[in-house]
Amino acid sequence: MRTTIKDIAAMTGLSITTVSLVLNNKPSRISEQSKALVFEAAKKLRYRPNELAVGLIKKHTKTLGLLLTDICNPFFASLAKGVEACCSREGWTVILCDTGESHDKELAYMQTLSSKNVDGIIYCASMDSTAQKFLESWEMMEQLGIPCVVVDRSYEGPGIRSVSTDHVMGGWLAAEHLLKLGHRRIACVTGPRHLDVCRDRLEGYRMALNKYQIPYNPALICEQRFSIESGRHAVAQLTGQPYTAVFAFNDMMAYGVCQELRAQGLRIPEDVSVVGYDDIYPSQILEVPLTTVRQPIEQLGIRAAQELIAAFSDRIPPECRVLFKPELAVRGSTAPVER
Amino acid sequence: MRTTIKDIAAMTGLSITTVSLVLNNKPSRISEQSKALVFEAAKKLRYRPNELAVGLIKKHTKTLGLLLTDICNPFFASLAKGVEACCSREGWTVILCDTGESHDKELAYMQTLSSKNVDGIIYCASMDSTAQKFLESWEMMEQLGIPCVVVDRSYEGPGIRSVSTDHVMGGWLAAEHLLKLGHRRIACVTGPRHLDVCRDRLEGYRMALNKYQIPYNPALICEQRFSIESGRHAVAQLTGQPYTAVFAFNDMMAYGVCQELRAQGLRIPEDVSVVGYDDIYPSQILEVPLTTVRQPIEQLGIRAAQELIAAFSDRIPPECRVLFKPELAVRGSTAPVER
Repeated sequence: MRTTIKDIAAMTGLSITTVSLVLNNKPSRISEQSKALVFEAAKKLRYRPNELAVGLIKKHTKTLGLLLTDICNPFFASLAKGVEACCSREGWTVILCDTGESHDKELAYMQTLSSKNVDGIIYCASMDSTAQKFLESWEMMEQLGIPCVVVDRSYEGPGIRSVSTDHVMGGWLAAEHLLKLGHRRIACVTGPRHLDVCRDRLEGYRMALNKYQIPYNPALICEQRFSIESGRHAVAQLTGQPYTAVFAFNDMMAYGVCQELRAQGLRIPEDVSVVGYDDIYPSQILEVPLTTVRQPIEQLGIRAAQELIAAFSDRIPPECRVLFKPELAVRGSTAPVER
Repeated sequence: MRTTIKDIAAMTGLSITTVSLVLNNKPSRISEQSKALVFEAAKKLRYRPNELAVGLIKKHTKTLGLLLTDICNPFFASLAKGVEACCSREGWTVILCDTGESHDKELAYMQTLSSKNVDGIIYCASMDSTAQKFLESWEMMEQLGIPCVVVDRSYEGPGIRSVSTDHVMGGWLAAEHLLKLGHRRIACVTGPRHLDVCRDRLEGYRMALNKYQIPYNPALICEQRFSIESGRHAVAQLTGQPYTAVFAFNDMMAYGVCQELRAQGLRIPEDVSVVGYDDIYPSQILEVPLTTVRQPIEQLGIRAAQELIAAFSDRIPPECRVLFKPELAVRGSTAPVER
């Protein structure tokens, strides 16, 4: 059974009121000797305050809700790792909520987290979140009075605190790498185009094409849903298009692209170069390791938790946008185009 | 701001006491009309009870602590997915605790979870947990009065509730598959040998050797730490041993084994067959997909959460051991031995 202040009172022979005053460090005329007795007993009995009671009085729980869309996607696992590590260091705890990419489940979780009195939410929007749905979620959190930091998938808007990677730069890095290798027909396998993370990557890709004076060809753009399977579909969908390289908007889709190209008898990178995005760990262990745009995923999680904890302590202004820089990791899946 | 019963009282013109009696479904002489008014206002104002207060009174929080060792390992991500899915369905929430394979961090988390008044803990022991350390953790949870279900890494003992896979059978399946293909010199890359999950797999491997009257050769057994990198080390350590197949005790180590064998110019499966364990998703996307022993990982998580929620509701006896059956997934990394 848990130790309560009653047990400490019984052990020390002091009153419950006295024990409570000492443990809560309240001003009193209790002797130093009695105080020492109480602390000693508390230590011996492994006393920990009941944080439910503390939470009710102090109106905070040092608990964050982490709303993500699929913990089995290594991107979100790394994100969760970062959030958890930061919270653990700061004495906070993390409630894990896996929305399975459903906006409705998101809204339901926000209600639940509110009833658990969390002090904040780290929010990654589900894939079906249009700008309108995103704002609906944001407004619900405002209404519930829960501070929030948006990670990864976000939308611009007044008062929105977000932590993400500079995806315009990411798209640019991927496309420019392929252009430098001589590729001119670069297919793009995007995620849902209403997401800012996709719009920005595509923007970077277009900017790079512009620099090389290559016209943008919509027939080479294929919208998919970030999964391995949807990467395979993309290749089928692009059949007949004369591309020499593929830029997939995440590593999972790049794995599917590689699988399907190989199934069609094509070699990577000799016949087709492939670039991914994220740099999750399997990308390094493939027989042909994947060239990809690396996001500092764990750092995103750490920073989001820091922002929220800081916001709670009023140490920072309430509105901010943190942007991390991506990096290109060049590996075996890209090569100069064969002319 | 959160809606409280004060807001409902203000909206309906009823007293706070009346609203409280209605919402908590307490016996009273309040008219059906007033009750309807209260429920309507509660719905309109999106009222949710303050679960901290409810928890203090009812002495439970419908919250589980999930103690796992590394959320970035896809095994634990899938496990977390299962736990979260079950909890979400049952209206429970999950506090995520990543121990980073440290026994000391485990003990600290148990204290934290106790102070958060969790109703139960799902516990996966860290890699350095010897039987003694495991029992130390178990005793702390008993002392704190928190029901616990052990998943995956466990030890046998009185009163221990556990959910795991039949690893003797798993070891047997892997070894027998290789023996049937004609392999006689099968190297084993184990995890820490003090863990029951490793002892059991090795036991299965020995049983299969016995059946084929192959003597057990300790020089072919290499103890490692479940990571990709340690798989690479294993190959270096086994240099000079004339093996034709490797059985790695998880897929992550198998990836490292394959990487290192290839770096030495060996082909898989033509020169060396490799079998893994777990069947995490990257095993399917490799250019040579990995033959492996599949654990029903998400099911383990779901079942552990179910057991704990049931234990809390006194629906099952307090002691039990749930064993799932593993399956062999035969893919491209194994082939008949070349003689």
